Amino acid sequence: MAQFPEKVYLNGEIIPSEKAQISVFDRGFIFGDGIYEAMAQINGAFFYEEAHLARLAEGLSKINIRYDVGQIPQEVNKLLAATNLIGKDCFLYIQITRGVAPRQHAFPKDIKLTVFIYALPKVLPDINTLHANVITREDFRWSRCDIKMTSLLGNVMLNEEAMQHECYETVLYRSGMVTEASHCNVFFVKDRVVYTHPANEFILNGITRLVVIQLCQELGLELREQAVAIDSIREMDEAFLTGTSTQIASIRQMDDHVYYQSNNVGPITKILQEAFLRLKTIER
Amino acid sequence: MAQFPEKVYLNGEIIPSEKAQISVFDRGFIFGDGIYEAMAQINGAFFYEEAHLARLAEGLSKINIRYDVGQIPQEVNKLLAATNLIGKDCFLYIQITRGVAPRQHAFPKDIKLTVFIYALPKVLPDINTLHANVITREDFRWSRCDIKMTSLLGNVMLNEEAMQHECYETVLYRSGMVTEASHCNVFFVKDRVVYTHPANEFILNGITRLVVIQLCQELGLELREQAVAIDSIREMDEAFLTGTSTQIASIRQMDDHVYYQSNNVGPITKILQEAFLRLKTIER
Repeated sequence: MAQFPEKVYLNGEIIPSEKAQISVFDRGFIFGDGIYEAMAQINGAFFYEEAHLARLAEGLSKINIRYDVGQIPQEVNKLLAATNLIGKDCFLYIQITRGVAPRQHAFPKDIKLTVFIYALPKVLPDINTLHANVITREDFRWSRCDIKMTSLLGNVMLNEEAMQHECYETVLYRSGMVTEASHCNVFFVKDRVVYTHPANEFILNGITRLVVIQLCQELGLELREQAVAIDSIREMDEAFLTGTSTQIASIRQMDDHVYYQSNNVGPITKILQEAFLRLKTIER
Repeated sequence: MAQFPEKVYLNGEIIPSEKAQISVFDRGFIFGDGIYEAMAQINGAFFYEEAHLARLAEGLSKINIRYDVGQIPQEVNKLLAATNLIGKDCFLYIQITRGVAPRQHAFPKDIKLTVFIYALPKVLPDINTLHANVITREDFRWSRCDIKMTSLLGNVMLNEEAMQHECYETVLYRSGMVTEASHCNVFFVKDRVVYTHPANEFILNGITRLVVIQLCQELGLELREQAVAIDSIREMDEAFLTGTSTQIASIRQMDDHVYYQSNNVGPITKILQEAFLRLKTIER
């Protein structure tokens, strides 16, 4: 189950988790005014580290927080050294907020931002053998889902609905079209063509999503960045989720529609899972 | 300008602001997973305190945080006593988050929530003499604006646009209809009829909004809870903002449309401002 790390990185210092505290006036606490990133260390290095850091930089820039993400790798190394995680498989979480100021909406001038990082040992399976059951819900989140922000109550509420139904995820649709899930991207396969929502303001452009698109190109699979109608999910041959921790997870059932009666995995999903595994080995 | 209070209330204790800290694993910091409320003490008592507490209770219930708001008045009294604000005009801020847990979207079981309250001396003017200039922007926030949550990055970003234009507020529209502003409700007047967006999931049902609706009834002014098209703002006779700190503020200019050439205030706006002032006196 979920656990706290023993030590975390907070504003340049490595401290025990239970002593890692921020001001109640941190805008991350008052306004959800921050950006986060998560990545996995696999076989000795962070998987697609550059892409993750580039996305973090982009998110910070979109909400006008000035911070040079180039300094992150050395700060992460400090943390990994202090937690005996250098080179070990682990999950890394980075959160940057605008900092501490008296409460008012307007961006404060000249304050120091807050940088919080932690790592937890985590060995991802070679291939995710999950046969996920998911529900679908109207996507009521904002229209800037391209920003990986910490104002996540919408995602939390939508994810909680899956928990209440003992499902792995909540797949979302907006104006009748499937966008993504509460913390994953969503793909469908129909007649050997792979579909996923285009990377616009309605989805978070996941790094694993980008890797899957790249794998489709390498494997000669047709990939269309085109949204699938929620009314068409029954006509799809396969469906799967992608994400940093999720990797590529087959969807067995969506609402009352069952893609595979037994614990099968669709052929395209399987090809992509195997190619993803090879990539993890090659990359490192 | 904005300032920190000297002391705040945090989880039952009154402590100096600079020592008021929460865990980096507080879900308020990680997910914006909390509800807040703001009210004003005027002439010795909190204005519409019951309505504010009822809304707080409703918000907590909507996101499944269990907390009895009935205990708040006595906690607030502790804070006011410690900060020499008993009976004095002040602004009160209350924030309740789901508490501290290892990061995962699903609601954690059996954790202690976080309660943070502070008060700042603030004397509201009898009548707000602001002649507000505002801009308009597409409302890209989520579709549960009825929930007064701390995941406020959308509001912060939209408000910042007003700041960049040296304006007081950003008036928002969704599907072509004016909803509210980044931290106020919006009213229009046309041919002596008062218009405001209905209290559905696209707006926060402000307490001052409710008071204005009640005043319209008492004054025999026709009030329609009916959204105004963004394309019709030029045809309106008057426009004003409402909010706990803003009270009732006349809008002088919206984008390039000027409602009043000089520093006039529309006749209906003025009637409501005066009735609001009488109410503040009578209520106490």
